[in-house]
Formats: sequence, structure tokens, C-alpha cells
Amino acid sequence: MNSLDKPPRFATGSVDLTHGGGGRAMAELIAGLFQRHLKNPFLEQGHDAALVSVPQGRLVMSTDGHVISPLFFPGGDIGSLAVHGTLNDIAMSGARPLYLTAGFILEEGFPLGDLERIVISMAGAAKEAGVPVVTGDTKVVEKGKGDGVFITTTGLGVVPDGVEIGPGRVRPGQKILLSGSIGDHGVAILSKRENLEFETELQSDSAALHRLVGEMVAAVPSIAMLRDPTRGGVAATLNEIAQAARAGIQIDEASIPLKPDVAAACELLGLDPLYVANEGKLLCFCEPRDTEKLLGIMRQNPLGREAAIVGTVTEDDRALVQMETRFGGLRVVDWLAGEQLPRIC
Amino acid sequence: MNSLDKPPRFATGSVDLTHGGGGRAMAELIAGLFQRHLKNPFLEQGHDAALVSVPQGRLVMSTDGHVISPLFFPGGDIGSLAVHGTLNDIAMSGARPLYLTAGFILEEGFPLGDLERIVISMAGAAKEAGVPVVTGDTKVVEKGKGDGVFITTTGLGVVPDGVEIGPGRVRPGQKILLSGSIGDHGVAILSKRENLEFETELQSDSAALHRLVGEMVAAVPSIAMLRDPTRGGVAATLNEIAQAARAGIQIDEASIPLKPDVAAACELLGLDPLYVANEGKLLCFCEPRDTEKLLGIMRQNPLGREAAIVGTVTEDDRALVQMETRFGGLRVVDWLAGEQLPRIC
Repeated sequence: MNSLDKPPRFATGSVDLTHGGGGRAMAELIAGLFQRHLKNPFLEQGHDAALVSVPQGRLVMSTDGHVISPLFFPGGDIGSLAVHGTLNDIAMSGARPLYLTAGFILEEGFPLGDLERIVISMAGAAKEAGVPVVTGDTKVVEKGKGDGVFITTTGLGVVPDGVEIGPGRVRPGQKILLSGSIGDHGVAILSKRENLEFETELQSDSAALHRLVGEMVAAVPSIAMLRDPTRGGVAATLNEIAQAARAGIQIDEASIPLKPDVAAACELLGLDPLYVANEGKLLCFCEPRDTEKLLGIMRQNPLGREAAIVGTVTEDDRALVQMETRFGGLRVVDWLAGEQLPRIC
Repeated sequence: MNSLDKPPRFATGSVDLTHGGGGRAMAELIAGLFQRHLKNPFLEQGHDAALVSVPQGRLVMSTDGHVISPLFFPGGDIGSLAVHGTLNDIAMSGARPLYLTAGFILEEGFPLGDLERIVISMAGAAKEAGVPVVTGDTKVVEKGKGDGVFITTTGLGVVPDGVEIGPGRVRPGQKILLSGSIGDHGVAILSKRENLEFETELQSDSAALHRLVGEMVAAVPSIAMLRDPTRGGVAATLNEIAQAARAGIQIDEASIPLKPDVAAACELLGLDPLYVANEGKLLCFCEPRDTEKLLGIMRQNPLGREAAIVGTVTEDDRALVQMETRFGGLRVVDWLAGEQLPRIC
């Protein structure tokens, strides 16, 4: 079910929104196009960040384009998001981020005041994270050939000795921890887009997770896998990991933190929160003996206060992700076939 | 004349094409917005690439967005250009590029076959350069919110011991070398855009210069400054360097290599080749005693076969760039006020 052996139709097909949606079509595009032609040992690591070796250290680089719409949303904007998103990709290798770069693609006619607001927000996020934006680039395209601002950020980080994180280390029996409530980012964006009003304003969870990760890997260097469930949400992320690890995953619906307002908004919007993007949450795979220690550490950090054990890795050649529902049944959590929320990050 | 003390009008202004054009408006935007808010010692180096320190080595990172139109042109396409452009930014620090990342922003409806062609071209350029694309990202925006494909590449490189390249090392008396003919890239793009026909097809000079730079810095580690004259051409590049070095520059029109076809096309199109983008050329500032050695080395490399001494650094507080014309007069080569050729890279 999870195989990626159906290559995209290069001769006749067109790019559509599913190719950027975090689901199966994107995975097929990556496997069939980018990994195929740009083939090298680094891309084959299958991480969001690449581990590169330099004479005296293990560095990681990661890059992320940001095309979120709207540019400003409750809890952040494209500037802070572009910092958080790439810092998190670096952190998910267990690395300490050192530097960021930023490439802007601007649309003719975009207000300079809005651009300034975005850059200020980016600068604030970088300062709070303690990671500088060390170089950048700006391009402008004609009106109607872009959409305000796109930002591509790239990060460089260093991996502490003894830390080896990757889907290849995921094994049956390991536990899966989640750092907090799901769906906050995607629901905040969509509510803003649709002009929905709730009793309390839904806020994106956009945040930099590298300090939380630093605390976790310092306490338990043997963590097997970390991943932030962004585009495609927890469902897409777990399917990617199951596929890469050739193992099954079973999660428990009742254990997954979900804010009542977010749950209500998801119902109203017809969304399954498992597929909704997060920008300040992480999934952690570890040995059962380490769960209590990790939960204790995570819950002391404001970004991990609601951390919980949400699942277990199982033996399953089909690499299925399944969920025990609140009603006691077992449901397959499949890859998302298409695009649920375009331009969510 | 070259001062950047006129900040952009953030409250009332709009982004326009001049902000991406490589001229004064872009310099003002960078100084008044990005450098101002993202302020750190790395951005203050004022290079296209940032020198970052890691425990045991000097690394450089550089990022470059590519929005060229048309995507395919004589001599290359956006895929090869995105590799060459960033490798060259890294090389202009005197560094050996090690790794690249690539972020794609795709427009819904873009043909997959064209995307494949671009990725294959990118892979070929990376392989020929010996520098892998180690990680990437893909986003898709709705039809009409992008323009086919934008690619942001970021590079990481290592600077050899003893090499210290930067505008701060430019001094009166130094000589300026140019590696070959000017204007080839910009004229090839514009001819394609305008469907102009010439007797021979005008080809972009898009190429990776890092091996040429490696040979140059190995022979003369004391090179003061290197820069590839891309957007805004030789004129914008020399003005930027003069400004940063607080020195004058005098160039000699007759010494600047220019292909007859390119000269003819520029006349037809109303372009001054000094302002036209190059993608496979470099300017080198060095002590007079090193010019012959460097020219000898450059001319042995296919990318430097036409290398020539084109100018001298002078004492001039106004930081003017001046050119001795073929007719013996002296003409100020000013910054480009606006945009000459949008989306040239």
C-alpha cells in the first residue's frame, strides 16, 4: 500500500497541488525525480536535513521554501515561520543549528511596509533562537508571477558526538512520543483564510524546537528518530517513517493531545487533525526504557509541556500506520492521497 | 554619488523591479532593510557568501534564488544556472564548494517533463562540478501565483588556509583582471525572449568557476577580491566594490573582451554591455606584481582563455567608477538607476 513504485508521468502529467502536499504524490515525485537524478549518498539518507562531513565535525544542512498564504496569521508570519521551519529541520537530526541563510522571491507591487514587518519578525525569531541569518538573496518577479513573498531558508548545524538519528534506527518495540497538541498551525491558517471566528483565537504553534531537542539528546543520546510533523501532519510523517523503517506503527487516538477549539474547528472545516500541519511539535522514537526520562525533560520545557506517549513501532512488512480509535477499533491511517491544505507553510 | 543613505520608503512604497535589479535600489533595500534588521557580523562582511567559523575550519555558505525567464535558453536552463550561480558565489570567497541544497517553488500546471529536464540539467551541472546537492525542498503554489519554476540554491564551501578575499582588501594601485567576454548571458536571454535571430546563436556563458578560482588562489593566495559580475553586469559589480573599498576604479574600454555578435545585439537592443549580466565570468583584484602569473594561469583554463587586465584601483573618496573610452575620453560608469533586464538569473 505504501510503495513508491508508481513514478510520476513525466511525459504527459502536470505539476498539481498534491506534489507539494506532503502526501504520497509528493513522495513519488521526490523518489521518481529528485532522488533519481540527483542521486548521491546524502539524498539517500532520506532526512529533511543532510548530514555532511567536514574535516573535523558532522554538520547538517537543510533547506525549506516558504509560500504560506496568508503571509500574516495568528501566532506568526512567513518571516518567523521561515526561521522556525528550517531550525526545526536541522534540530530533527539532533543537531544544534549554527547559521541560517534566506532567499526572498518578491512580487512586484508588494508593499515595502509588509516586507519590513516580515523581515523584522524574521530577525526577532533568529535572535530569540540564537541563530544568525548569515547571508541572503533577493529576486523580484513581475506582478502576477509570484504571490507577495516567498522565502527559502537554509540552515547549517552541528551534530553532537554520539547522536545518530535516522529512520534506519527505528525498530519494533520502540515507543513514539509527541511533544504536544496537534493541528494548531493548519487550523489557525485555514480559519484566517476562511475568516472563521471562534470564541478564542486559534494560534499557530510556530516555534523553534532546537533547545527542546538539545535537552532531549543530552539526556538520551540514543534517541532513534525525531521528526516535526509539518505538511501532511502526524499521519504523513508517521507513514514516511514507517515506509523508511519497513515497520508498522500503531498509535492510540485517546493519547494524542488535541485542543478542544482545534477539534471543533476541524469538525467545522471537515479536516482530520491527524493530517493537519504543525510547526512547533515533534515526534520522537525511543526505547521503552527511556520514555519516562524523556517525558520528564520534555514537560519541563514550555514547548513540550503536554508531551505524551502516543504509539509503538510494530513488526509489519506492509509498513502500515494504524490507530486504535476512542471506540476501541483499529483504523488504517493512510497517506494523504492529495492536497488537504495548500500553502500551509 | 554612491551613498546608500536614502532608505527605501517603507510606509508608502512598493516593491518594484528595480529592487531585484542589481543596481542602486537593490543596494538601498539590502542596506535599509535586511542588513538593518538581521544585523550580525556575517551580513556585515558584505559578500555574496558568508564566512562562518566552525571549530576546525573556515566555511562559507551562500544562497541564491533563480527566477530566470525563459526557463530554457541557449547555453543552459534554470537547473544548470541554479548550480553554477551558487557555486560561483561560493568560489568568489576563494572557497572550494563542498555541498549544495536546492529549494523548488513550482507553479500548479507546470509540465512534469519540463521539470524533469530541469532536474536532469541540474544533476549534470552538479556532477560536472563535483559538488552534490545534498538536500532539497519542494513547494507548489496555485496557477497564477508563480511562474513555472523558481529554484533557490544554497552552497557550503571551505576556504583554503591563507586566503583572505574581501572588498576590505582592495587598495589603490591594484590591478583588475576580467576572465573573459562580457554580456553573453544577458544578451542570450534577451534575444531568446524577443525571438531575435542572429547569424550565430548567442549562447549564455553560464559555467561553474570554482576550478578556475582554485587554480588562481593556489598560485596567488594573496588575491584581494573576486566577484562574478552577474545582475547589473560589470558596471554594478565595480560600483559595489568601489563603494565597499572607498576607492575609485578606472577601467579601459578597449581592453574589455566583447564578442562582435554580442556587441551587435546590444546595439540592436539598446543595451550597454557593461550593465548586462554574466554567469561565467569573474573580476579579480590583485597586486600589479601578480598580474602576469594570474593571467598565465587563467588563460590555460577554458573559462579564462580571454582573460585580460581591464583596470586599476585609484584613490578617490567619491568611489567613482570611470572608463577610458575607445575615443580617449573619460566617462563615469554609474550605478544602474533601475532595472535593465528583469529575471535574468
